[in-house]
Amino acid sequence: MNTSRNPLHTIMAPKSVAIVGASANPMKMGSMQFLNILHCGFPGTAIPVHPKHEEIFGVKAYPSISSLPDTPELAVLVVPTGLVINMLDEFGKLGTKHAIIISAGFREMGADGKILEKQLLETADKHGIRFLGPNCMGVFNSQYPFNATVTPFQDKPGFLSIASQSGTYLAQTLTYLKYRGVRLNQAMSVGNEANINIVDCLEYLGEDPKTKAIGLYIEALSDPGRFLEVAREVSRVKPIVAQYVGGSKAGAKSGLSHTGSIAGPDFLYNGLFEQAGVIRVHSIEDVYKVGHVLATQPGIKGNRVAVLTHSGGPGSGMCDTADRQGLVVEELPDDVQDKIRAVIPPTASPKNPVDLTFIVDSKPLSQIIPQILLECDEVDGLLIHGIMDTGWAKVTAGTLGKALGVSEEDMVKLTKSDLTSFLQLKEKYGKPVLVGSFMGDEDNARNVMMDNFIPVFSSPEKAAFSMGCLYKHHLIKTRPYSKAEKPQGLGKNTASILAQAKGPLDEFQAKRILADYGIPVSPESLASSRDDAVQAAESLGYPVVIKACSPDILHKTEKGLVKLNLGNPQEAAEAYDAIQEGAPGVPVIVGKMLPVQREFMAGITRFEGYPPCVLFGMGGVLAEALKDFSLRLAPMTQAEALAMIDSLKSSVLLDDFRNMGAVDREALASMLVNLGYLAMDFPEIKEIDLNPILIMDGKPVAADALIVL
Amino acid sequence: MNTSRNPLHTIMAPKSVAIVGASANPMKMGSMQFLNILHCGFPGTAIPVHPKHEEIFGVKAYPSISSLPDTPELAVLVVPTGLVINMLDEFGKLGTKHAIIISAGFREMGADGKILEKQLLETADKHGIRFLGPNCMGVFNSQYPFNATVTPFQDKPGFLSIASQSGTYLAQTLTYLKYRGVRLNQAMSVGNEANINIVDCLEYLGEDPKTKAIGLYIEALSDPGRFLEVAREVSRVKPIVAQYVGGSKAGAKSGLSHTGSIAGPDFLYNGLFEQAGVIRVHSIEDVYKVGHVLATQPGIKGNRVAVLTHSGGPGSGMCDTADRQGLVVEELPDDVQDKIRAVIPPTASPKNPVDLTFIVDSKPLSQIIPQILLECDEVDGLLIHGIMDTGWAKVTAGTLGKALGVSEEDMVKLTKSDLTSFLQLKEKYGKPVLVGSFMGDEDNARNVMMDNFIPVFSSPEKAAFSMGCLYKHHLIKTRPYSKAEKPQGLGKNTASILAQAKGPLDEFQAKRILADYGIPVSPESLASSRDDAVQAAESLGYPVVIKACSPDILHKTEKGLVKLNLGNPQEAAEAYDAIQEGAPGVPVIVGKMLPVQREFMAGITRFEGYPPCVLFGMGGVLAEALKDFSLRLAPMTQAEALAMIDSLKSSVLLDDFRNMGAVDREALASMLVNLGYLAMDFPEIKEIDLNPILIMDGKPVAADALIVL
Repeated sequence: MNTSRNPLHTIMAPKSVAIVGASANPMKMGSMQFLNILHCGFPGTAIPVHPKHEEIFGVKAYPSISSLPDTPELAVLVVPTGLVINMLDEFGKLGTKHAIIISAGFREMGADGKILEKQLLETADKHGIRFLGPNCMGVFNSQYPFNATVTPFQDKPGFLSIASQSGTYLAQTLTYLKYRGVRLNQAMSVGNEANINIVDCLEYLGEDPKTKAIGLYIEALSDPGRFLEVAREVSRVKPIVAQYVGGSKAGAKSGLSHTGSIAGPDFLYNGLFEQAGVIRVHSIEDVYKVGHVLATQPGIKGNRVAVLTHSGGPGSGMCDTADRQGLVVEELPDDVQDKIRAVIPPTASPKNPVDLTFIVDSKPLSQIIPQILLECDEVDGLLIHGIMDTGWAKVTAGTLGKALGVSEEDMVKLTKSDLTSFLQLKEKYGKPVLVGSFMGDEDNARNVMMDNFIPVFSSPEKAAFSMGCLYKHHLIKTRPYSKAEKPQGLGKNTASILAQAKGPLDEFQAKRILADYGIPVSPESLASSRDDAVQAAESLGYPVVIKACSPDILHKTEKGLVKLNLGNPQEAAEAYDAIQEGAPGVPVIVGKMLPVQREFMAGITRFEGYPPCVLFGMGGVLAEALKDFSLRLAPMTQAEALAMIDSLKSSVLLDDFRNMGAVDREALASMLVNLGYLAMDFPEIKEIDLNPILIMDGKPVAADALIVL
Repeated sequence: MNTSRNPLHTIMAPKSVAIVGASANPMKMGSMQFLNILHCGFPGTAIPVHPKHEEIFGVKAYPSISSLPDTPELAVLVVPTGLVINMLDEFGKLGTKHAIIISAGFREMGADGKILEKQLLETADKHGIRFLGPNCMGVFNSQYPFNATVTPFQDKPGFLSIASQSGTYLAQTLTYLKYRGVRLNQAMSVGNEANINIVDCLEYLGEDPKTKAIGLYIEALSDPGRFLEVAREVSRVKPIVAQYVGGSKAGAKSGLSHTGSIAGPDFLYNGLFEQAGVIRVHSIEDVYKVGHVLATQPGIKGNRVAVLTHSGGPGSGMCDTADRQGLVVEELPDDVQDKIRAVIPPTASPKNPVDLTFIVDSKPLSQIIPQILLECDEVDGLLIHGIMDTGWAKVTAGTLGKALGVSEEDMVKLTKSDLTSFLQLKEKYGKPVLVGSFMGDEDNARNVMMDNFIPVFSSPEKAAFSMGCLYKHHLIKTRPYSKAEKPQGLGKNTASILAQAKGPLDEFQAKRILADYGIPVSPESLASSRDDAVQAAESLGYPVVIKACSPDILHKTEKGLVKLNLGNPQEAAEAYDAIQEGAPGVPVIVGKMLPVQREFMAGITRFEGYPPCVLFGMGGVLAEALKDFSLRLAPMTQAEALAMIDSLKSSVLLDDFRNMGAVDREALASMLVNLGYLAMDFPEIKEIDLNPILIMDGKPVAADALIVL
């Protein structure tokens, strides 16, 4: 995979870096970043540029960019806004091709800032410079290592990498993460994304062999189409977990003020993430924790989990959450129960959850039983709550220890457990093991597990939730995959229909375009006289519907310009006359009357900056009230369209529901795929509404259609 | 309120307690509990009973219960199952009226255990003893203080009290809670609830003046009817937050194996909690954290929050979560923005979120601006992210400190902030203040805030979520309230209709019963001849519907035994004949044909151990697929029925939807209230289905009805 010329390969592991903005005052941001580059174990050369100081923190400084002895691979700028463009130009002249621009004061500041940012970009383009920022908080790579943020590393390297539209999530959470045993591999703050955006980061992290899972914090995507393309590929191999905060009214507003991008509604991102294989979470905590689990655990192969506890509450909490996550906690096979029964007290339950009842000793929870459970073919993953050792000793040292006449130190020694065999179980059986514990870092067992990449959660429900996310990734990894490809022969006549139309399209024209894109429409003809109308009805076969055909008339039904269920020539003729009376000179559509048992709707809607969005949902009077619809971005694959259909709560209506016969889902999916291509091919189409889509002989057919230009 | 004779008033604060099961071996459970009673500062007398030891942990022990010098107010039994009943009997003879039975081995063990538990209960009743347990983990009261659990107190007393069906949640989470600044007031483990149940705990905590909020952990309610009654009263005054884990398949199973009670489905508890004013959460973490916020913050008076941060990410995360919780983050009034603008850097935003951009100093986040925001009448609550001081110093001591030539100790001293005025703001303005910080207990500012009941959350989203729960409680506290009262004159004839029926009820009989309970049904008559049928149609007015009326015929529509939309005498006569042909000798219902624009359904369903459940939802073909329905327990108030109706996503259909006219919600609510009384009055009614309910002149009318006996 390592074939892209993604600039981050250099930015994240530069051989040499020049930093402008570090000074002798360590309280300045540039100084903090320089200090961290110096102290992180960076194997390359780091050179400060400063007009006055001869050295900074013991490193020789150069008075100007042009005076640098070598061309640095990477430039880091932490200088006042006004200096940035010239300095980048100077680096460009030197031959530097990569930069991180920490300085703020660009697009996020409004119109003037936008102009500045454009100039910045032009300057970079002139020299072929790729850069992160401006208005970002830097990057770190714990493996190389390289740390150009304001915070020193707090922990050993891990396997989760983060790309974030907020610098805080790599610059201010490292102690938070250390306490929770979440270790990061690489992280980048993308700032205003003037040049390198979060999709480039995603692509790069997809290629990075040491990154096992990717966490994203997103306020608004500047290139959602490419995000879909890249994430769709990466998520087949590596789990991606993302928080998107721009979908709510308040979130969009605050994100806007921060980065200056256009956020999309929440349902758009739900659809996009589903389609792209991105696991959506709703807090930064979950980005980290779920990401850490996805990065460190063997993939789960099914949804059957075993729960092992020493107390009913956490066990039930785990079960309840597991169930909500699509996992099942089924009674264990008899032989497995027998094996467990042999080693537990008589009051304990071997069923699943395996509940040992209250014990302080961590052995039964970490030896023998976990092995029995993981050995079982009907267990795909293991949740344990309650492994602890020295923490409990410390809690009770003042009472119990005193009564025993044992010092806290000795109690800690006595209770320390040997988890060696337990730590190997996840690799040995290739199954995930997640643990819950109410202990903090005072507990040796917790710390040892965390150190060995067995995630320990402070709440049993969080462990179960994370197991559910492993299962989600399993579903993503194993779902049918293909590249989105336009079916052949679509849209041969649409350009000419559009050219002829001159102005808004009427229903008949709209349906010709749909048909041209392989979208089934109801059998119908256009008629401009009573005789034509009757003849059309005769050749379609009764019953028929006759309706006025004009792009200028709204609310046709309310105006009596739609006549349903006409059973013979006379009724057809009368209907024609009645419509003519209401709308003189307007042609009519004579269509086959389709049974209205189940109504669906599909359409295209557009959001500025996003690819066309394909919508599918149920139709009829309730559709509006219940908002049961799904959305995907064009272009989509047939498999994605099928998944989109299945994601509806009301998709059960497509089955043989109440003896109505099953609907051809493949045909429906094709319809949605093709709608997407129609919208992609003709950007002048603002909106498409197929409503209702009715079912004729098990196939979907657009009975009414509107195309808005 | 302090008028109940709730036995917990004594159990939670006994003057004297005797414990059986403590021994010289401090590793035994009874010993741990005795040690904690001794070391917690218990102001009463604690006496151990032991057959052999003369003293235990320095306290004189008595060889038997009968040899005790005085009658203890409370007995605590931690002895083998087989000894419990006799010992309780002995305490009873002594005159002890209260007990905590820690010992397990009763109902949770199956049939034999059930018999034992019954004997236990009989023994208690004989002496008028009220007891907690068996199979519980004790109680603690941090104010009195009294601690009869296995864990020593870890923190100072707080204002949140916990009643739990899992002992773990008071016996094993105290270090967890200390780290998170959550302080408890009282807590009880209810075990098998043989005598005192969790509803008694709720009632007691409702009366306890030092308990400001109540947290519940529930696996299954043994008395849901009384729970509703008590919680409805308590929640008007004190917030109640609850986790219920028995609603999912896995959760119910694990709960069952643990306590032996019958869990109800999730939607039942959703309805029950809504009705009772209980805030439902889905993890024990949220019980504690949300409970702590509810217990320590001034009530919020509206849903407008201000967000103050020093970084975009956490600010946006708070905004996004706030929005999902029904809170609004609106732009601040101009004058307020002006005041803020005067004290922030030019790149910062004063709008809301107020984003100061990256700073390490905590002053701007904790002084001046919070005051400006809380002073504003358009701000109901304040969310802040990023207040920190010494934690940051410690993180950077190795780099920044070194460069500055300042020791870690001095850096800590230099950075320590004075939060005195900040800590008083919530009381001064009577508005809640919640804080997010990624720092742990290494940070002085975090610890000081926690110590002073300003909750600090490790994730910005959690702070916003908790603020949402404050708002939920505001809505509960201020919603219309009345006692559930049966309307007069209901059900005068139902007993005699049921008596006459002898066997299953037909539709006509069912509707007579409904009408007897004030539930509007469609105008109709029963007819047993063609002439009667036509005459009935004539007097109802056309169009009419004619359908076979027999409790024995299912799927009438499919069998052609329902004839709709009959427009004249001839059609009515023909319909009668056709039905007679299909179902000879069966009488018919002749009913007014109602417009089928909007269909709803209502009904009664029963779950073993629960009061009758009233259901309301939309009807028609989609109802089944979309499951948009709500549930409440009978008896309910008119206001509760209205809230139940409004909680449906599809309730918009009751408005003047697409010009169909608004539906009389009060009439609909009465219908639901009365259905509940019908089910309460006649337990022999297993199920009621009104489907569809149609709308006639804006009023709901049951067009079809089934009552199953």
